[in-house]
Amino acid sequence: MALSARNRLDGTVKEVTTGEVMAEVVIELGDGQEVTSTITLNSCERLDLAPGDAVSAVIKASEVMVNKD
Amino acid sequence: MALSARNRLDGTVKEVTTGEVMAEVVIELGDGQEVTSTITLNSCERLDLAPGDAVSAVIKASEVMVNKD
Amino acid sequence: MALSARNRLDGTVKEVTTGEVMAEVVIELGDGQEVTSTITLNSCERLDLAPGDAVSAVIKASEVMVNKD
Amino acid sequence: MALSARNRLDGTVKEVTTGEVMAEVVIELGDGQEVTSTITLNSCERLDLAPGDAVSAVIKASEVMVNKD
Amino acid sequence: MALSARNRLDGTVKEVTTGEVMAEVVIELGDGQEVTSTITLNSCERLDLAPGDAVSAVIKASEVMVNKD
Amino acid sequence: MALSARNRLDGTVKEVTTGEVMAEVVIELGDGQEVTSTITLNSCERLDLAPGDAVSAVIKASEVMVNKD
Repeated sequence: MALSARNRLDGTVKEVTTGEVMAEVVIELGDGQEVTSTITLNSCERLDLAPGDAVSAVIKASEVMVNKD
Repeated sequence: MALSARNRLDGTVKEVTTGEVMAEVVIELGDGQEVTSTITLNSCERLDLAPGDAVSAVIKASEVMVNKD
Repeated sequence: MALSARNRLDGTVKEVTTGEVMAEVVIELGDGQEVTSTITLNSCERLDLAPGDAVSAVIKASEVMVNKD
Repeated sequence: MALSARNRLDGTVKEVTTGEVMAEVVIELGDGQEVTSTITLNSCERLDLAPGDAVSAVIKASEVMVNKD
Repeated sequence: MALSARNRLDGTVKEVTTGEVMAEVVIELGDGQEVTSTITLNSCERLDLAPGDAVSAVIKASEVMVNKD
Repeated sequence: MALSARNRLDGTVKEVTTGEVMAEVVIELGDGQEVTSTITLNSCERLDLAPGDAVSAVIKASEVMVNKD
């Protein structure tokens, strides 16, 4: 798989919450930081996501903002 | 600042590349993973981003995909 | 807060609709125009959003399209 | 045109900056607030955008974040 | 309608699934490939989408990733 | 690769335009419709994209709007 999306953050599924159309997936990264994703319920079921799964958060560079306090 | 975007990943600016309209910012996270962001050149200059700056990558949950090999 | 997202439109929360995973927030701007946002239910509760709240709609420039009739 | 994108903010083109691939368009809304958009240079030329043009900023609800100070 | 979004894929609504806040719309393209969209329930009702409707999937170029196996 | 993004449209690279930070890739689908993507120059070089390459356009469902005339 060679996908143009620049960002792949490896982690483990911590929590999955499902609704009628959407699902929320919380992923814990190596350093303990968390990444939350909302995907369609359909995709969540297709990937058969469950706590403990090894996954990666995939994010296109144009969707990432930068904050500098 | 209470922003609805769920994801804030703390890190350090590693590299900044600028074009006429856009800029690319590579951020190194605590665990060595990298996050790349494309923002407008204007924002890059407004934030005065330079290698070594402490920043956070801010990402809305709806922009995060999940990959499970 | 110095966030790279270029667009901050100040307004007031007019309406909040919640589902199991997502929430919809309608914001009225100064000139009466409205901006609608969908965020996670979790973020909506974290920000404790309710009608009458002073908020700003924050939008990355790359997410804005232009229409010219 | 019945587009699902919920947000259409009417305004006037204030400034256009072009690069080799992308273009930045600053739109002034009725109440003086500004919205900045980055689109492809190709789209900018196709719409023949110039300062003074009456346009609307079109934004999908899922791309709008909410900030509450 | 002259919208900056570069991508308009013509097709027919195959399936609509609604939740409390969001709705999922599956569109069949001419060549049998499918495109799935999640929009707000409000937009889905405003457009009065139903199977068999002639529609187009509209996608900003910055939201499209490229995969090369 | 099991990616949550719902939309994978198979096609062939028709045209690649590069700038200092971004690149534009035009993909021709089976039925002759075209999909345009903007990705970082870095990703474009990493994928070594050139006209004639078999690729797929990958799009998250939340980034797809619906238009009904």
